[in-house]
Amino acid sequence: MSLAMTEDEITLAIVQAIKEGKKNTVQDLLYELHPYDIAQQYRHLPIKHRSKFLLSISLEQLTGFINELEKEEQLDILYKLGIEKTTEVLDLMENDDLANLLTDLEPDKIEELLSGMKEEESEIVQNLMNYPSETAGRIMNNRYVWIDEHYTVREAVDKLKDFAELAQYLNYLYVIDQDKKLVGVVSYKDLLLADLYDKIEDIMFSRVVKVDVLTDQEEVAKLIRRYDFVAMPVVEDDNHLVGIITVDDIIDVVIQEANEDIEKLSASGKAIDFNTKPWVAAYRRLPWLILLLLIGLVSGSIIDGFSATIEKVIALTFFMPMIAGMTGNTGTQSLAVVVRGLVSKDLDFKESLKLILRELWVGIIIGIICAIMISIIAVVWKGKVIGLIVGSSLLLTLIIGTLAGTIIPLVLYKFNVDPAVASGPLITTLNDILSLLIYFGIATMFISKYSEILL
Amino acid sequence: MSLAMTEDEITLAIVQAIKEGKKNTVQDLLYELHPYDIAQQYRHLPIKHRSKFLLSISLEQLTGFINELEKEEQLDILYKLGIEKTTEVLDLMENDDLANLLTDLEPDKIEELLSGMKEEESEIVQNLMNYPSETAGRIMNNRYVWIDEHYTVREAVDKLKDFAELAQYLNYLYVIDQDKKLVGVVSYKDLLLADLYDKIEDIMFSRVVKVDVLTDQEEVAKLIRRYDFVAMPVVEDDNHLVGIITVDDIIDVVIQEANEDIEKLSASGKAIDFNTKPWVAAYRRLPWLILLLLIGLVSGSIIDGFSATIEKVIALTFFMPMIAGMTGNTGTQSLAVVVRGLVSKDLDFKESLKLILRELWVGIIIGIICAIMISIIAVVWKGKVIGLIVGSSLLLTLIIGTLAGTIIPLVLYKFNVDPAVASGPLITTLNDILSLLIYFGIATMFISKYSEILL
Repeated sequence: MSLAMTEDEITLAIVQAIKEGKKNTVQDLLYELHPYDIAQQYRHLPIKHRSKFLLSISLEQLTGFINELEKEEQLDILYKLGIEKTTEVLDLMENDDLANLLTDLEPDKIEELLSGMKEEESEIVQNLMNYPSETAGRIMNNRYVWIDEHYTVREAVDKLKDFAELAQYLNYLYVIDQDKKLVGVVSYKDLLLADLYDKIEDIMFSRVVKVDVLTDQEEVAKLIRRYDFVAMPVVEDDNHLVGIITVDDIIDVVIQEANEDIEKLSASGKAIDFNTKPWVAAYRRLPWLILLLLIGLVSGSIIDGFSATIEKVIALTFFMPMIAGMTGNTGTQSLAVVVRGLVSKDLDFKESLKLILRELWVGIIIGIICAIMISIIAVVWKGKVIGLIVGSSLLLTLIIGTLAGTIIPLVLYKFNVDPAVASGPLITTLNDILSLLIYFGIATMFISKYSEILL
Repeated sequence: MSLAMTEDEITLAIVQAIKEGKKNTVQDLLYELHPYDIAQQYRHLPIKHRSKFLLSISLEQLTGFINELEKEEQLDILYKLGIEKTTEVLDLMENDDLANLLTDLEPDKIEELLSGMKEEESEIVQNLMNYPSETAGRIMNNRYVWIDEHYTVREAVDKLKDFAELAQYLNYLYVIDQDKKLVGVVSYKDLLLADLYDKIEDIMFSRVVKVDVLTDQEEVAKLIRRYDFVAMPVVEDDNHLVGIITVDDIIDVVIQEANEDIEKLSASGKAIDFNTKPWVAAYRRLPWLILLLLIGLVSGSIIDGFSATIEKVIALTFFMPMIAGMTGNTGTQSLAVVVRGLVSKDLDFKESLKLILRELWVGIIIGIICAIMISIIAVVWKGKVIGLIVGSSLLLTLIIGTLAGTIIPLVLYKFNVDPAVASGPLITTLNDILSLLIYFGIATMFISKYSEILL
């Protein structure tokens, strides 16, 4: 019915059906829509029709599209639904999505929401929320099918049929032994090709790639990419299977981690999106800016220390922003290479050394080229001595800046600190300060030697 | 056999088996390993054993692990294999991986590699390579199973069994009509639950989410995330099904796009990884640095223009790096928020305006706080007038910097230019220049008014 209709036509038809109180028509209209599209319909619906819409659609449709909404919208809907229907929805929601929804709510609000749920489900969710954030345990769900190693293929297929709903997304069954330990995996394809009376333990793969509940989510993403998996089993303690992580959640992890890298590299403050309130965004950015302000004062006092030199040759100040900017930038370039390289690859000591040497060469090459360019310009503009000072300073600061941008994140990585932190503040500052010291240091030296030419 | 063995033990056993010429033992040792792990084994193998290793393993194992290697390693292996075996491997490789391998090779090298392949396969690959890079057509593959809309469920299941190898990764069958047009999808689950004699056209979903061959890969990633799909069908011309894009490739797209954003935001040059040669890396970074150098000279000439003011009050130079740095940073912060926000969400005019207003407020809040802090410090350090100059300049430059960092990328986005480009150079420069003009402009004004207090 809805196939040939545009989204706007569907919205109109829904409003019509709601007004006439035809629940079935509403459900039929939504039948071929994906949860995301139902969510879009909900957002386009006039506010006065929303409550009725929620009561018209099926529980599965409701649960599906709630997952697509922002947290605040979700809570608003649960409030509109009332406690009884809310409980039914929560029972149907995936545990990881639910845990995510509950995170950061007030404790008594959580208790209220969980109290109506089936005890078993509620325990699982509370259990999930106990794992540290950004670990495998926190993002796993329990929508998978396990089979016993002693099953026949026929028994496995029967179980798969019974739990088809759970198995929709996957193409593997996980095999456990009597102690619920993970001992193997069987693909649907292998089931299809095997004889019905084969034993699972004879056809399964027993070398299972898995992660521990406490594994960092970034590590899980690396493994799933490496093996091109759709899902990854999660074990606890002594190899007990407790959940799986699916690739759709991993895409979100990858984007989240990339955003975190960018936030740190651009020193732009945690988790600011289009909906963040101004004072929250300002609050999250201020620490970086205040840090930079203090750092700027350090630069200031360095310049202050050289004010005798500057007073003699004001022209020195003209090149100051350029030298500081270039040094900061070459450092950031190296830093970005290191931080993003580590997303896909681990580095041992030998490889780190190789990388440092590579960057040293890069620093030397760009240092020489830029130094020659700026020397020519500076000589023409302000004379030989200034040209010599600016050129030699730039050569030196570019090499040092490149090395700092490489070595500092590698050292942090070695000590298990996220190298992206070494960004905005640390490297830019260090390079700022170093470049000013080198520039004015060289200038002071030259000027005391050649002051008769200059003055 | 290999289950209880560590990776090193497997390597040793492989070397032993190669020495004894036992091909079957080598293949058995690798049986339970994933392609990535076989690739690791290959890398750990002493070089002198590698050729024999390649000849010992099965064609499937060979094809699988080659995909896990870097391009140079792949070409090295193909060279080692000789033309005949290479052809067999290429026939088995996924088309998108093959197209990827061939990209950037010399034309006659491509011809040589493709010439031995089955004509049909070779045509498909050449066809793929004709699509622009970073489009759906370039990253799609043809490892999917299609069925006719008039099939019964039984016929569909039979076809699925015959092509089980292709269907391993998916959980949908794509339904086409007699013109090969995509008309629906059926999930494996629906097949499992339906009656064997149901018609496919009666149980399929006909509202198919799909993309065109020319759709940007970033857009495909957005859709796959939105719908939590494992794969997305790709159509050409008049809805003809020509391939699918699988989620494992999408994860790579997401990471690649994040890296590109970071490269642009940090102005660090395209595609530099740990293996890039120094002169290549230097060559890719130099354009940005040279641009920054020229920009630095513009800042320099602005300062030059104000040298009369500076000569009167050298202390002004102390706060110069701080003001330029803070303005640049607040601009980058806003830019990062816009660029990353657009990864997950599209913005219309109304939402853009809302975002600009939000950032204006952020600029005002951080401007006021930072201005008060620096005024106090500057008054104590250098006196009232300097304090007033520095404080009012910082307030103004922070507000302007924040707005520039928001509005410029939004305008570029509106005109379909990647907003991340607006990064390093454009915004930092603009903010550098604006901040110097404002700072020295205000200073000149104040000093001409209050020169009797200062001098």
